[in-house]
Amino acid sequence: MKIETIFSPTNVDEMAMRGKNVVIIDILRASTTICTALHSGAREVIPTADIETATKIYSNLSADSRLLGGERQGKMIEGFNLGNSPREYTPEKVRGKTIVFTTTNGAGAIYKCRYASLGLIGSFVNMSAVVRTMVDLGGNWTILCSGREGTFSLEDSACAGMIIQKIREATEIETDDGGKTAVILYRSFRGGPLSVLKQSEHGKYLISIGFSDDLQICASVDSVPVIPAVDGMGIKLRQTGLAANG
Amino acid sequence: MKIETIFSPTNVDEMAMRGKNVVIIDILRASTTICTALHSGAREVIPTADIETATKIYSNLSADSRLLGGERQGKMIEGFNLGNSPREYTPEKVRGKTIVFTTTNGAGAIYKCRYASLGLIGSFVNMSAVVRTMVDLGGNWTILCSGREGTFSLEDSACAGMIIQKIREATEIETDDGGKTAVILYRSFRGGPLSVLKQSEHGKYLISIGFSDDLQICASVDSVPVIPAVDGMGIKLRQTGLAANG
Repeated sequence: MKIETIFSPTNVDEMAMRGKNVVIIDILRASTTICTALHSGAREVIPTADIETATKIYSNLSADSRLLGGERQGKMIEGFNLGNSPREYTPEKVRGKTIVFTTTNGAGAIYKCRYASLGLIGSFVNMSAVVRTMVDLGGNWTILCSGREGTFSLEDSACAGMIIQKIREATEIETDDGGKTAVILYRSFRGGPLSVLKQSEHGKYLISIGFSDDLQICASVDSVPVIPAVDGMGIKLRQTGLAANG
Repeated sequence: MKIETIFSPTNVDEMAMRGKNVVIIDILRASTTICTALHSGAREVIPTADIETATKIYSNLSADSRLLGGERQGKMIEGFNLGNSPREYTPEKVRGKTIVFTTTNGAGAIYKCRYASLGLIGSFVNMSAVVRTMVDLGGNWTILCSGREGTFSLEDSACAGMIIQKIREATEIETDDGGKTAVILYRSFRGGPLSVLKQSEHGKYLISIGFSDDLQICASVDSVPVIPAVDGMGIKLRQTGLAANG
């Protein structure tokens, strides 16, 4: 298995991801929140890169089954129903709903994967489920980190490193410079995911605006064992039996 | 001192670098070759992003003091005088000459720094000279890695890590997620720069096309103790006494 690791989606466009098997990571917090929303029974999450598109899609959905979620500068957007904290995405709020979702980094990265052969949402909270799926399906994979405003982020890269490390324990893989670095980074944090999040720029920012509890939630390995997958314009729980593209 | 570390110039443009103090790194091999050329007595190196521009500038220079240098796919460009191996840039060939220079990654990254307050060329071969200059001048700095075709490269990032590590030994600094990762990466290679280059994708490629000697040269810390600096459209040996922008 060959694994390509990309630290920021800036240089990536829809065509570059077309036909690939991709895992998209945005630990703080889009990946974690999407896993939580679907695990809580949301029907679908529709990622959009901007607020205008989110509002437009939302206005065309049935009024009793739609929600608007997301953030700018980490905070809930005015007029939205939900922010980007996984704690908000409870079964009471989201069961059966379609959530139109826009965030600064993750939602845009996911949107760029709409022509991927397979686009899975990866995070610490669904680590083993993602790794197992990648190993079972085989083929070659791209790990796309959402990064932070077009640049490198510590937490997404360390999560990529953990995925690669765990796949390596199960099968033989070939990595690139990015993948090698991600593994070195992940292994250097003896305190595990939570210590990564606490030392990351975005983690520190979230603590500063009152979301320190979210760091603990986003660092909880295997706490939300689902596989969200890009499916048309939305993200749904993965239906098994789909073939990966090798 | 605050240090920002950027792993690829894709997301960077001239205006983002305007007024900043920047160290541009392209270990394999533009940085190393530029240091060597100026150390061998070249008057100036003019970086350009494409072959057409290089040829146009060259055609307007005095015939007895001009050379065309650079590479595509690591090899000398047809019709050029020199490739991108530091071994070619001897005093016999380059003394007193203006070298119009185009390479796949480094030359373009340097070109994006033409409005920087200060743009220094960094590499392993001039490590201590660059670190000393940064510490002496103070202020805030950006380390811009050229990367490889728009993505992350192991060797440039590890060199950034060595620079940051050495500055930290001299003064207090604040780093971002990229800088933290670069230091972790650099420190993980117990075998030093040569082991980084040998494990990097581009290092392996250069070995495959017959340039394995260049890796040894590019890994030789402090072997070419010069400070090339962007000066107008060219790169010259730095004139001391210029103030950095804090």
